[in-house]
Amino acid sequence: MNPHLFDDDDYALGTLCNPDPRVRSKSLGKLLEGVDIASQVGASVLSLWFADGTDYPGQDGFRIRRQRLQEGLGRVYQAMPPGLRMVIEYKLFEPGFYHMDLADWGGSYMLARALGDRARVLVDLGHHAHGTNIEHIVALLLMEDRLGGFHFNDRKYGDDDLTVGAINPYQLFLIFCELVAAERDPRTSASVRQVALMIDENHNLKNPIEGTIQSVLALQVAYARALLVDYQELASLQAGAEVIRAEECLKDAYQTDVRPLLREVREEMGRDPEPLESFRRSGYMAEIARRRGA
Amino acid sequence: MNPHLFDDDDYALGTLCNPDPRVRSKSLGKLLEGVDIASQVGASVLSLWFADGTDYPGQDGFRIRRQRLQEGLGRVYQAMPPGLRMVIEYKLFEPGFYHMDLADWGGSYMLARALGDRARVLVDLGHHAHGTNIEHIVALLLMEDRLGGFHFNDRKYGDDDLTVGAINPYQLFLIFCELVAAERDPRTSASVRQVALMIDENHNLKNPIEGTIQSVLALQVAYARALLVDYQELASLQAGAEVIRAEECLKDAYQTDVRPLLREVREEMGRDPEPLESFRRSGYMAEIARRRGA
Amino acid sequence: MNPHLFDDDDYALGTLCNPDPRVRSKSLGKLLEGVDIASQVGASVLSLWFADGTDYPGQDGFRIRRQRLQEGLGRVYQAMPPGLRMVIEYKLFEPGFYHMDLADWGGSYMLARALGDRARVLVDLGHHAHGTNIEHIVALLLMEDRLGGFHFNDRKYGDDDLTVGAINPYQLFLIFCELVAAERDPRTSASVRQVALMIDENHNLKNPIEGTIQSVLALQVAYARALLVDYQELASLQAGAEVIRAEECLKDAYQTDVRPLLREVREEMGRDPEPLESFRRSGYMAEIARRRGA
Amino acid sequence: MNPHLFDDDDYALGTLCNPDPRVRSKSLGKLLEGVDIASQVGASVLSLWFADGTDYPGQDGFRIRRQRLQEGLGRVYQAMPPGLRMVIEYKLFEPGFYHMDLADWGGSYMLARALGDRARVLVDLGHHAHGTNIEHIVALLLMEDRLGGFHFNDRKYGDDDLTVGAINPYQLFLIFCELVAAERDPRTSASVRQVALMIDENHNLKNPIEGTIQSVLALQVAYARALLVDYQELASLQAGAEVIRAEECLKDAYQTDVRPLLREVREEMGRDPEPLESFRRSGYMAEIARRRGA
Repeated sequence: MNPHLFDDDDYALGTLCNPDPRVRSKSLGKLLEGVDIASQVGASVLSLWFADGTDYPGQDGFRIRRQRLQEGLGRVYQAMPPGLRMVIEYKLFEPGFYHMDLADWGGSYMLARALGDRARVLVDLGHHAHGTNIEHIVALLLMEDRLGGFHFNDRKYGDDDLTVGAINPYQLFLIFCELVAAERDPRTSASVRQVALMIDENHNLKNPIEGTIQSVLALQVAYARALLVDYQELASLQAGAEVIRAEECLKDAYQTDVRPLLREVREEMGRDPEPLESFRRSGYMAEIARRRGA
Repeated sequence: MNPHLFDDDDYALGTLCNPDPRVRSKSLGKLLEGVDIASQVGASVLSLWFADGTDYPGQDGFRIRRQRLQEGLGRVYQAMPPGLRMVIEYKLFEPGFYHMDLADWGGSYMLARALGDRARVLVDLGHHAHGTNIEHIVALLLMEDRLGGFHFNDRKYGDDDLTVGAINPYQLFLIFCELVAAERDPRTSASVRQVALMIDENHNLKNPIEGTIQSVLALQVAYARALLVDYQELASLQAGAEVIRAEECLKDAYQTDVRPLLREVREEMGRDPEPLESFRRSGYMAEIARRRGA
Repeated sequence: MNPHLFDDDDYALGTLCNPDPRVRSKSLGKLLEGVDIASQVGASVLSLWFADGTDYPGQDGFRIRRQRLQEGLGRVYQAMPPGLRMVIEYKLFEPGFYHMDLADWGGSYMLARALGDRARVLVDLGHHAHGTNIEHIVALLLMEDRLGGFHFNDRKYGDDDLTVGAINPYQLFLIFCELVAAERDPRTSASVRQVALMIDENHNLKNPIEGTIQSVLALQVAYARALLVDYQELASLQAGAEVIRAEECLKDAYQTDVRPLLREVREEMGRDPEPLESFRRSGYMAEIARRRGA
Repeated sequence: MNPHLFDDDDYALGTLCNPDPRVRSKSLGKLLEGVDIASQVGASVLSLWFADGTDYPGQDGFRIRRQRLQEGLGRVYQAMPPGLRMVIEYKLFEPGFYHMDLADWGGSYMLARALGDRARVLVDLGHHAHGTNIEHIVALLLMEDRLGGFHFNDRKYGDDDLTVGAINPYQLFLIFCELVAAERDPRTSASVRQVALMIDENHNLKNPIEGTIQSVLALQVAYARALLVDYQELASLQAGAEVIRAEECLKDAYQTDVRPLLREVREEMGRDPEPLESFRRSGYMAEIARRRGA
């Protein structure tokens, strides 16, 4: 659901969790409208993030808010046509500065289970407490067939919405290793195919198209490197407790420069091997500026 | 399960999650032994924390370790007599420095659900990432009847095992408010009664008996303050979006000096009103030292 | 310096640290204008926070930016009339998401020393990494006569700008204990008198006047409790390594309900003993609303 | 100073900061002994880390402890022969769980300045709060000629002492970029040459020799990549506010596979191009085991 739909003062205390039944009802209306649009356009994923939370201890009850959320989402879930999946995002903080109603993967998972099989969890790389092992969460959700999708980005502090891979590209690679390994495992391969890959960034200082190209390139690099890992060999080293060799098995793939390979693939597909340079040469930005000026 | 039972080199790569089937089997044996002891002594709670985790990316597979854990605990669960509950602790890090197999409440909750109704989650106050809202987790678990117990302590950094209430006594009060409010709510009162309250601290610099008395006193203060809150009034302020008044409703109770009341209660019960002073006056430490010297 | 003075696109890459000399010069002009205003109104403190930082590794050079900052501030410092002090704030992150040019107290302190005796460090309670011991920083800066002031507020996550004392009131008390103890120590008492106490909060969900009254009350409570501590007794317990007794010496003061005392003091001063209730009864908000409506 | 020298109960409340003058004097004696040994063996660096801190608010006074530390280290500094430099480490927490007397770079820097020109700051990569930008600290200390050295390692949570580069190899590269750039800048090149590079890790699960070889290889990779950066080109992109191109300038170097180059260099030096494999083939471990068994 597009957060802009909720962007007025009514929602200062929440949407579906709001203490005011009128606001809850209005929120539900917007959500059902979203389901309707999704049905009409044949969308397969309804991606939901709730700005619901509180700023101060005592401001509202955790349990009553949870109940409101569950009831509201239950109505949305029931309204979804069979081909639509719901993915439920979580976020540690902001706009809620004391608590968020969906603050971590556990909270979204618990809710998804209560709703039904077509409700899943969305992992935004920037929405975790420091130290959280995201690739582990990915693996657990894949095992339970509850990983709904990603919002790719990167962060050093809070929800910084930086270009994916800009701060910790090794972490990004490790997440892709979980996806590739799970895809090759018959018990989880169907689960992986349900995962929606999205970029969610904020290009304050970057040309947004160039920033998006940069992000796609970073994702291709992480994915290509993850494809280079020999997961059978890795499993065998792990079974033998070969800690250093198993680690080096990942690091070897990570240290490989996959850019020549990616350039080759692009050329085989009839694309420009250097997308960022190609875009800059294209004159598209100047053309757009000229047209908008006119 | 007592972690000392596992204290040898065999367990460097884990217990139930260990890649070596021999070690897994040995671990399972110890756990079943624990169930046996619990049965014999008529214990009602089997409290489990697993030191399982990895130090390096690639060291072992997240999913295969989870599967081993689930299989092993399934065996333990099946062996439990009807009156025994299992509470499953989680911990962000240490001894695992890259991942812990049970790293957060979501991981323990997912496992508890897979096992059955008598498996619950144990919340150790020191085992969370910075910024985690623990009282929110408590509320969510109570709603689902999955809160198994607490390990009370406090921390400023990692798992510091300091005296409960020593760093953030307001947080402790807010946790007790969740317990008291849930106890008074017919939908959750049974759930609260299942919660095992334990102290888990490390008295490096304190006389351990005095440190324990200090902890019990801190818990009594937090509990007494939480009992002073008018939860009906609070709910009504929350429903009316009275943010400041609702917050002040909690702060009023928190700022009340409950020590005179607690002293009175102790006197009514025929106890010394000042337990710490009383212990110091008792000469117990000197007596113990004398006996051990002899 | 008021950040609004800088609020246009020119400053996306910084103010005094900006790679563009024209923007640096414009920033310097605004700062010198601020000094001029401060002189005219006879202000004693020039409080500076710089939104300067970068979002991406490589975006700009740390050292060259530092040099620009030091040169620019050197000019500002030289322009200050003798009665004016400069206090330099720091902030872990935001708006810079990869680095802030003044990210921690060390960075502000190093700069203050380079500038001269009238440059000091401003501590905003919400601008630290998780786990930072703020009261320790306060003590170190007081020792070196470099504590310039506070921005009081509270936070659970990032720079949340919540009402001071709303999340961790014990920490606030401990900060006041450092101030009171240093005030009573002849070696630091002059240093304490230089400290400017300011509230810097964001009342999203609260009536801003009520939120400010609430903050002043929280500061009075913390200060009154800190005044109750017997610092000579505390020092003597510390010298004797009486860890528990020394801790309890602080906790006793903290657990005292100082609200009756504060009410009494207000009455003696001819003020309403309950400022928040008094403001609500005053009808001021309704009057303002009526006038603004008219 | 080797921490083992301090390893007895006397030091539970600190070494040079201890409230007991007898323990402070004993600590000072050990430190002066260290200076003596350093003189005799012609060491150039005296590397000091202090386990001093407190566990509870009120346990001891921040300012009095600081004074003791400064006095004690002043004596050590005066005893140092001219060729010896002192490097002062800091650490966020542990063993102190409420405060560490030297908790951050600001604290070590302030002390180093008070001591004299031959006192510098040691940066241990694992001793920072989450979110700290270490490469920025490195740059600031280099500018002031106060960077004394590194303890290389990596961490995901606390002071995990993992193999350097194991968690965030990009951060390691960025630190080396600061070193290389500063080395090429005439204003800081002398400052860089004073920096002592040390590995400080804990190989729980790894053969310690293999773990050390792995660490040296990771450092060589980071350094070689940092040498590939064109710092003049980078500075020119930065001056032109080319955010993406400047970032890509670093990323290009980082993504280059420098292992073939490093192998070549080793061969030119007459060394084995694959040190880890070479060590494994050498039979050294078996030989050592045989000898120790005998």
